[in-house]
Amino acid sequence: MLTGDLRARGTDIVVTREPGGTPLGRRLREAFLETEETVAPIAELLLFAADRAQHVELLIKPALAEGRTVISDRYADATFAYQGAGRGFEPETVSSVIELATGGLKPDLTLFFDVTVERAIERMNTRDGQGGTKNRMDTETAEFYAEVRKAYLGIAEREPERFKVIDANGSIEDTHRKMMEIINEFLARNS
Amino acid sequence: MLTGDLRARGTDIVVTREPGGTPLGRRLREAFLETEETVAPIAELLLFAADRAQHVELLIKPALAEGRTVISDRYADATFAYQGAGRGFEPETVSSVIELATGGLKPDLTLFFDVTVERAIERMNTRDGQGGTKNRMDTETAEFYAEVRKAYLGIAEREPERFKVIDANGSIEDTHRKMMEIINEFLARNS
Repeated sequence: MLTGDLRARGTDIVVTREPGGTPLGRRLREAFLETEETVAPIAELLLFAADRAQHVELLIKPALAEGRTVISDRYADATFAYQGAGRGFEPETVSSVIELATGGLKPDLTLFFDVTVERAIERMNTRDGQGGTKNRMDTETAEFYAEVRKAYLGIAEREPERFKVIDANGSIEDTHRKMMEIINEFLARNS
Repeated sequence: MLTGDLRARGTDIVVTREPGGTPLGRRLREAFLETEETVAPIAELLLFAADRAQHVELLIKPALAEGRTVISDRYADATFAYQGAGRGFEPETVSSVIELATGGLKPDLTLFFDVTVERAIERMNTRDGQGGTKNRMDTETAEFYAEVRKAYLGIAEREPERFKVIDANGSIEDTHRKMMEIINEFLARNS
C-alpha cells in the first residue's frame, strides 16, 4: 500500500527485503532455514550480516546513487531486536557486526508496525492456516517475542525522529491511515 | 599423512576443514560458489565468518572440551591472507570479524605449506586436469596470490612460535618429512 501510494505521486521506488533480497541472500536464507543442524547464535548473526552486506552493496547503495527511494522490509534494527535482545548478544557486538555489514548506512525513516505479542502469534497462526508456512524464525516462545518487541520500543525511545511506532493492532485500513500520516509529515519536513 | 602418523601413535584426532566443515557451512560454501551475481567483498568476509563460527561452536570447541586433538584445514590466518591482503580490507576489520567468529580461539600450531606462486598455479592447473574443479577462489591473478603469500609469510614473522613455514616446492615425501620434524619438535616441547 505504501509503495502504491508513493508511486501514484511519482516517486521512483525500489522495494527490497531482507533476509533474501539478493540471489546470494536467498541462498543464504535457504541454507539457514533448511539446515538440519543447530545454528550457533554467532553464526546466525554473521550469516544475516553477510546477507545484509550483499543487500546494501548490490541493491541499496546503487539505487540511492541513482537518486531513487528505497523501501526495505527489515534492516539493522531487526538485528538489534532479534539477535541482540532475543539471543542475548551484547549491544556492542551487534553494533560492530551491523557497522561492518552496512558501512554505517541508515534509513531516513523507519516504520515499526507494533502489535501485542498475543496478536502477533495469532496472526502467524492465521498466516499458517492460509497456506503460508512457519519457519525457524516463527517458532520462538512468547517470551522471546516480548523481548524483541521491547528492544524495538527501546529504539523508538532513543531515536524518536527516525524510528516511528505505528499501532498495528487494528484493521489494515486503520494501520494504513496511521502510516500515511507519518509518511506525509516526514515528506513535508524533508522536501 | 599427518593424521595417519598421529593416529598410529594413539592420538585421538578430529579432522575438520573450512569453509564447509559443517552441514550449514557446506550450504554456505555452495551458495557462495554457485551464485550467479557478484559477491561484495564485505559479504564474502562475513559469509566465511559465519561458516567459521558454526565450525568453531559445533565442531572444534566440543572436540577440545573432550580432550581431542583438532586438525583443521585452514582457519583464521586464511582470512587475514585472502580477505585482508588479497581483497584489501583493513587488518582491524578482519581482526574484529575473526574475533567474533572464533571468540579468540587460536590453534596451538599452524603449518603453512609454502610454494612459489608459479608452482601453486601449476598445481591448480594439474588438479584441474585430473578432474578436479577450479572454483571462484582458484581463478584469481598471480598478483593476488603473491599478496596472499606475502601476508602468510608476514604472520610467520610476527608469530614464529605458532606459525611454521614448510617449503612445499619439493616432492610429497620431502614435504612430509619436513612437516614431521616440526610436529615432533612441537610435541617434544608440549608434552
